[in-house]
Amino acid sequence: MSKPICYSTKAFSAASATSPLSAATIERRQPSASDVQIQILYCGVCHSDLHFARNEWHFTQYPAVPGHEIVGRVTAVGSGVKKFKVGDTVGVGCLVDSCRTCSDCRAGLEQFCTSMVMTYGSIDPHLNAPTLGGYSQSIVVTEDFVLRMPANLNLAAAAPLLCAGITTYSPLRHWKVGPGQKVGIVGLGGLGHMGVKFAKAFGAHVVLFTTSPGKVADGKRLGAHEVVVSTDEAQMAAQAGSFDFILDAVSASHDINAYLNLLKRDGNLTLVGAPEKPLPVAAFPLIFRRRSFSGSLIGGLPETQEMLDFCGRHNITSDIEMIRMDQINTAYERMLKSDVKYRFVIDMASLA
Amino acid sequence: MSKPICYSTKAFSAASATSPLSAATIERRQPSASDVQIQILYCGVCHSDLHFARNEWHFTQYPAVPGHEIVGRVTAVGSGVKKFKVGDTVGVGCLVDSCRTCSDCRAGLEQFCTSMVMTYGSIDPHLNAPTLGGYSQSIVVTEDFVLRMPANLNLAAAAPLLCAGITTYSPLRHWKVGPGQKVGIVGLGGLGHMGVKFAKAFGAHVVLFTTSPGKVADGKRLGAHEVVVSTDEAQMAAQAGSFDFILDAVSASHDINAYLNLLKRDGNLTLVGAPEKPLPVAAFPLIFRRRSFSGSLIGGLPETQEMLDFCGRHNITSDIEMIRMDQINTAYERMLKSDVKYRFVIDMASLA
Repeated sequence: MSKPICYSTKAFSAASATSPLSAATIERRQPSASDVQIQILYCGVCHSDLHFARNEWHFTQYPAVPGHEIVGRVTAVGSGVKKFKVGDTVGVGCLVDSCRTCSDCRAGLEQFCTSMVMTYGSIDPHLNAPTLGGYSQSIVVTEDFVLRMPANLNLAAAAPLLCAGITTYSPLRHWKVGPGQKVGIVGLGGLGHMGVKFAKAFGAHVVLFTTSPGKVADGKRLGAHEVVVSTDEAQMAAQAGSFDFILDAVSASHDINAYLNLLKRDGNLTLVGAPEKPLPVAAFPLIFRRRSFSGSLIGGLPETQEMLDFCGRHNITSDIEMIRMDQINTAYERMLKSDVKYRFVIDMASLA
Repeated sequence: MSKPICYSTKAFSAASATSPLSAATIERRQPSASDVQIQILYCGVCHSDLHFARNEWHFTQYPAVPGHEIVGRVTAVGSGVKKFKVGDTVGVGCLVDSCRTCSDCRAGLEQFCTSMVMTYGSIDPHLNAPTLGGYSQSIVVTEDFVLRMPANLNLAAAAPLLCAGITTYSPLRHWKVGPGQKVGIVGLGGLGHMGVKFAKAFGAHVVLFTTSPGKVADGKRLGAHEVVVSTDEAQMAAQAGSFDFILDAVSASHDINAYLNLLKRDGNLTLVGAPEKPLPVAAFPLIFRRRSFSGSLIGGLPETQEMLDFCGRHNITSDIEMIRMDQINTAYERMLKSDVKYRFVIDMASLA
């Protein structure tokens, strides 16, 4: 495959693990027959963006352009594109391609394909160069990895659905959360606040766990039926053995056994945060009630479209704070202090 | 409820955490209307017996009589007993009663009833005294907690089915192990060797993991299609991402992440050993393939009977070494060195 013709577009990139992000010009491929070219309108700011920009996962190549909660408008389509036309509003999440042939891809679970191409942090097979994310004015993505945005949603507030949304929607669906169930959401941040909204929309009795007494009122506003301050032992003890499912969205080290003990027999706790160090898991909470402890990673393309359509029908979006592109470095510092309710979204017009 | 009339029977008991077990006389209740009196013929020796005799779980009351893999013959039945008659060969496992009314009991999962009465280590509600286990000549058990032994099985070799058998059968059934699946069994001891036999009988491709190169041949004799020496990194790496289910029967601390990484997407690892200290579990092996880590505890009464009937049809028993009752202290020392293939069983006639 010869290298495709490219065009230039504006972006914000990190030159090294210790550099602030700054304006840059990057190259994108001209759309091939199966490609969709998208003018990026909004891009959500995920904690992964910061980990990646600062090489905290030890695989970043520089210059690095983060961003995988992308919403935009189609500006061109390749000759073979069937699902999209110029002017459509579309989304791109954490994935821009995969092998299409393995059992995971055939099951619509492209996030587990060992050849998946991430929106940033992978090698782009077209350009044989690192993929560059959504902190930019334009992106080109093969149509099968482009998602249709519901017409009724606020596009800026919908951007975080592409990662925070699907990351919480997928495990709640996989573990069949629904009416009659008691469901816990641990942590009220970008992921957790979406978890509360989805679990509520699925008809469960929703209990939010937070370390911050100051978030109790907000938790209820977002839809939680109860809010437990997890540092209060009496409040935690009162919930013992009562949950069908717990979604744990905390990335910091924390006592997972305290939450496993809140599950009923056969209950499941799924981790979507990714604590850096292994979590000590005691055998007895698992053995004595046949509980299970799992992980979950975003979602595949079919489920991501299903989630967006669900959000359209139920008018679900993220609670966001809009920023200009040149505020990204300050936003990262505030994110590290959990000073955001509950997701920063970059207005990409500010990059013009 | 007035205290029932009692009778005396011979037993072996520990007088303290540091005493060897020795001959004693204990009291059993005379059978009530719903009780079955059993002459104990054989009793398997479970590692739990040793933990309990030595108060390693910190709840033992002395004098303590261990033993919960009991096979015997019915010597008397109460007036209301319908399922058993004098002369029947029967089994008693880890449980002798439960509340009968909670959701766990109604589901036939009496092992999770918070009021379950263990064969030893609980308070007997009839006598308001500690329950006394199977290292004795006779026991009285309410008929609903007595199991029917298949006529074709060697009774001594069938005794370990009551704990080691059901502990491995239940999770393999719960996680629907069957033909076309690749199943790992970690550890070749009393539990592990039963896990190999059941997984093979269920039609799975069975891979045994052992730290002992000396157990490779025995693992294959017992039915494993492959035996992996888990200290060999190359052998472990060759199995990465290939298992539907892994049953982990190791009670010592060990690297659980090494086994989680062997699971396919959506694979489950269930722990039936109970390591004393929490096991460090890394988030990434769970998240990146949606794997889960669970525990399992023996099985309920209906499933224990199902397991025994299955063993009868498939002629499955434990590989045992028979001992006299007065060899129990030596047997404990050998068990601590894993010097048993694969279960000690006490010939209770030796207590006469």
